[in-house]
Amino acid sequence: MAKLTQLIDNEVFLAYSTYATIVLLKMMLMSLCTAYFRLTRKAFANPEDAGVHSKGESAKKFLRTDPDVERARRCHLNDLENIVPFIGIGLLYSLSEQDLFTALLHFRIFAGSRFFHSISYLVPLPQPCRGLSFFVGFAVTLSMAYRLLTTALYL
Amino acid sequence: MAKLTQLIDNEVFLAYSTYATIVLLKMMLMSLCTAYFRLTRKAFANPEDAGVHSKGESAKKFLRTDPDVERARRCHLNDLENIVPFIGIGLLYSLSEQDLFTALLHFRIFAGSRFFHSISYLVPLPQPCRGLSFFVGFAVTLSMAYRLLTTALYL
Amino acid sequence: MAKLTQLIDNEVFLAYSTYATIVLLKMMLMSLCTAYFRLTRKAFANPEDAGVHSKGESAKKFLRTDPDVERARRCHLNDLENIVPFIGIGLLYSLSEQDLFTALLHFRIFAGSRFFHSISYLVPLPQPCRGLSFFVGFAVTLSMAYRLLTTALYL
Repeated sequence: MAKLTQLIDNEVFLAYSTYATIVLLKMMLMSLCTAYFRLTRKAFANPEDAGVHSKGESAKKFLRTDPDVERARRCHLNDLENIVPFIGIGLLYSLSEQDLFTALLHFRIFAGSRFFHSISYLVPLPQPCRGLSFFVGFAVTLSMAYRLLTTALYL
Repeated sequence: MAKLTQLIDNEVFLAYSTYATIVLLKMMLMSLCTAYFRLTRKAFANPEDAGVHSKGESAKKFLRTDPDVERARRCHLNDLENIVPFIGIGLLYSLSEQDLFTALLHFRIFAGSRFFHSISYLVPLPQPCRGLSFFVGFAVTLSMAYRLLTTALYL
Repeated sequence: MAKLTQLIDNEVFLAYSTYATIVLLKMMLMSLCTAYFRLTRKAFANPEDAGVHSKGESAKKFLRTDPDVERARRCHLNDLENIVPFIGIGLLYSLSEQDLFTALLHFRIFAGSRFFHSISYLVPLPQPCRGLSFFVGFAVTLSMAYRLLTTALYL
């Protein structure tokens, strides 16, 4: 098992592991955020959820969409769409013998851009705050993919 | 290549690999479930799909949303939102030299909670069945993230 | 760190790494595709986005759904639902000592099926083009899961 220890001893992989966990936890927070808006705005998608608040006919009026709930859901979906490529490409990137300083720069900028993206989306801040934070995270993932494919390519 | 064999020989990694595959297969099953509801309820999102059932004007009436289809889609999206963090955090967790018994406990409870979540969503069972199964899976992922970050942190 | 080099020197893992990056980049392209349709069709989901085009009352009329935007979003979500299992199962599959030729066959067919799926969805091509490309990709992931679980199973 000694060889496995060396994987987690690799500093680039360790940094990836830390930042990947942080952005995934941040994404999980969005579930709670949607649940919070659903409960405070009383806007549910399922009859069995609305029924907890009131029985019978009056429960139906809580089966509705609410702008704040929809905003949180779009923010969550955008996280999913951008964090999945980061997790996948970042894992392979961190296993392909990259420079620690460059790798940390990629991971830190990506994590920062996603936190700023969620804040821009939920406040909401005026554009182009959200647009810019999206493109910064997008560019970081593209840059990692470029470095990965130039280091190791097997078609 | 001998070193690679040792990765798959590691029991925690092997257990992760098995449970990760099982929950991903379970998530893929949701695609078939949505397709089944779309076909039996005749509720399609695309004109080219509705057109298979009937041509011309009458095809348009199948371009609609159906409560069962939407329920399956929400269940699928909830899977995606929760299984992605499990796959990412679980991979790093299983590479960070954890105790086999504790790891198995995490993986088994998570897999169980997701199966129970889907059943609660699709039947549907009365609340708080679905809510509880969601939070159990959520707590397992948080617990793995906590153990991972306390074992290996590099900011 | 010599052991880590051997991971990226493994040809199956290298092939996985290349194809996983390609399909993830393809999925990221869908974000740009949705943004393109939102801008050209002037159909926005957020008031702060619509407000960039025109101020005041007239901005509200751009807060709408558009068939092309919704089509691109469904295509993106379908990518996410299918590429996540491929990334997860494919990673474990490529770490479980598989035959290079068989592995390459799996990765190439999957990547091809997803490209063809997106083209079928966006053009759109008549059914069953999209349905078939979906099932080919689905079958590849199932085949990898089967080979993985028969090689390494720890419940």
